[in-house]
Order: sequence, then structure tokens, then C-alpha cells
Amino acid sequence: MARNPERRTALLDAAIEVLADEGARGLTFRAVDARAGVPTGTSSNYFTDRDQLLSQVGDRIFVRLTPEPGAIGTAMRPAPSRELMVELMRRLARRMAAERTCYLGLFELRLEAVRRPELRTQLTRVLRSDLDENVRLHLDSGMPGDADTVRLLYFALTGLLLDHFTVPGLHGERDLDDLIETVVNRVVPEV
Amino acid sequence: MARNPERRTALLDAAIEVLADEGARGLTFRAVDARAGVPTGTSSNYFTDRDQLLSQVGDRIFVRLTPEPGAIGTAMRPAPSRELMVELMRRLARRMAAERTCYLGLFELRLEAVRRPELRTQLTRVLRSDLDENVRLHLDSGMPGDADTVRLLYFALTGLLLDHFTVPGLHGERDLDDLIETVVNRVVPEV
Repeated sequence: MARNPERRTALLDAAIEVLADEGARGLTFRAVDARAGVPTGTSSNYFTDRDQLLSQVGDRIFVRLTPEPGAIGTAMRPAPSRELMVELMRRLARRMAAERTCYLGLFELRLEAVRRPELRTQLTRVLRSDLDENVRLHLDSGMPGDADTVRLLYFALTGLLLDHFTVPGLHGERDLDDLIETVVNRVVPEV
Repeated sequence: MARNPERRTALLDAAIEVLADEGARGLTFRAVDARAGVPTGTSSNYFTDRDQLLSQVGDRIFVRLTPEPGAIGTAMRPAPSRELMVELMRRLARRMAAERTCYLGLFELRLEAVRRPELRTQLTRVLRSDLDENVRLHLDSGMPGDADTVRLLYFALTGLLLDHFTVPGLHGERDLDDLIETVVNRVVPEV
């Protein structure tokens, strides 16, 4: 296997673009090579097969969607409150919207996971670790609510972002910030 | 265009299966004909092009996912309460789980809608009419909460069902009924 880490990352980022643009069925080594602008055959030097490519794409999506630890620390510095939760969730949603390709790629991977048990196991593991980390941060920082508050915010944000990306006109004049404020105000108790 | 309505419906149901199994990219006239067990070329007698097929698939999914008006009337007969909302949402989720292929097909269509403005317009229209109808039923029946209660339940149920279908082990021992009770108890006010 080829070992140039920058090249591998560039191939994975190209794969995420293919995934978001063409769907999981369009994700072939050839399509990744074309998107990355490298000679045909390059991807097959980096990944043993399509399963391995999908698995590493999953990991890469989470690396790109997860904020730096420093940014999280700074964001959570103000006193815990429902207002701060609104602000944090808005920031999170804006981050997902900025990484639109990644987030759409994640939805495509989820649907592909229905057909691929190995991918399902891996996505379950990374999504769970992400959710657990969010619960830990929430509780450790003294934010109002409990683990199920975080779980409910996660469900609602998934549904909200899916609409935002796929049927953005569904909620009329109400933008992402407005919808998120509504969700947080109804899910997170007042301090 | 061929006009046998049963045949058209059978082709659309076959198309939904192809969509759920293969993703939107796998949805070709040939694949639909094969899945429906009809001679190659049949679908092209029923649909002018792939856009029209996708559009009619979208409508068919909503027909299959929407309960009969009689069933809704019966379900909403008891006095409005949060407990009844838990029961109604559980029933709704069980219906979606029973129509797993349809619901997965709807997610595939949503992702395809990112790439197809016409399909996006149509899905927006049917999803909005579905959401508006749910708001109307909720308010008319005197259920606790307001229009945003219903919107929040819709967001959360979308996220919850997406997990249930794509990464069913994510929430450990907690089954659909348990998660739905948690969601409703936190979103719907007590009477």
C-alpha cells in the first residue's frame, strides 16, 4: 500500500465529494481518481478494496466535522445556560452547513450502511463515540438537562439539517438559526 | 403512455424497492422492469423519463406511508393527552418500520433531490402538506402543545428513524418505543 499521508487525505476528500455528488453507488476508485485529478489506478494503491475506502471515508468525515478541542473549550467558557446552548447549537449547525459536502456524504454513507454490515458497525461506533462525547461535555460543563436532553437535541438536529440540505424550503421563512432556537428552548430546561 | 393503473402501481412499488436496495443511481427503467418481473421496455411505456418516474415514486411513497383517514379518526378518539401522543407516535413509528422499504426510499429520494431541483420542489410540497396536516390534526383534536410541538416531534422522529434504519445499535438497549416515549415526554407539555 502507498503511504503518502497527504495523498491519502486528498483521495479521501475527493471520495467525499464523489459520495455527496453521485451517491454511494457512484463511489468507484476510478471516480475518486478522476475527482482528485490523479492518474487512474492511484486509489487502488491506497485502499485494498471499496469496503476499506468506505470505512476510511467514514473516519475522515468525522475528523472534518469535529471541531478542534481548543475551539470547544473557548465556546463553553461562558456560564452554562439555555442561551449558551442555543449559541452552541447554532455554531454546530453553521459548521455542518459549511461542511455541506461532508454532511451529505455522511447521509449517503448511512444509507449505504443499510446494505453493508461492516460499514454499519463502523458508523455505529463513530456516531456513538461522538454522541457520548457530547453527553460528557454537556454534563461536565454543568449545562441544564441530562443525557437524554443531548440525545433529543441530536435527533432534532439530524432531522433539521436533513431538511435544510435536502428540502430547504420546507419550513418557509424560518431559517436555521430560528429553528434551532425553537428546538433548544423546548428541549433544554431553564437553569 | 400505457394506462393500466394496477400495472403502473406495481411498477412504482418495484421502483421503491430498487431505490431502497440500490440507491437513486441504481434506479433505471431496466432495473424497475427486472424487479417487477415484466418485459424490458415496460416502464418506458408508463413514464416519459426518469424525472417523471422519480416524481411518481415520491407520490407513491406518501400514499403508502399515510394511514387511512378512518384509522386516524379511531386513533384520535380518546381524550387528548401526552400519553395518547406517546401511543400515536409509537404507532406512527411502527408503521414506518413496517414500511421500511418506503421510508428508506424516501431518504434516498431526499438525497437525490439535492441534485434535482424539480424533485426537490415536489418533495418539499408533499412533505409540507404532510406536516401541515399533522399540525392541523394536532390542534383540531385539542392535543397539548402548538404547531412547533408538532414540528419538533417531526424533526426528532426523522432523526430517530434514520438511526433506527441505518445504525440500529447506536442507542444500545433502548428500543424504538422507549426512545419515542422519551422524546414525546420532553417535547409535549402535560395537559
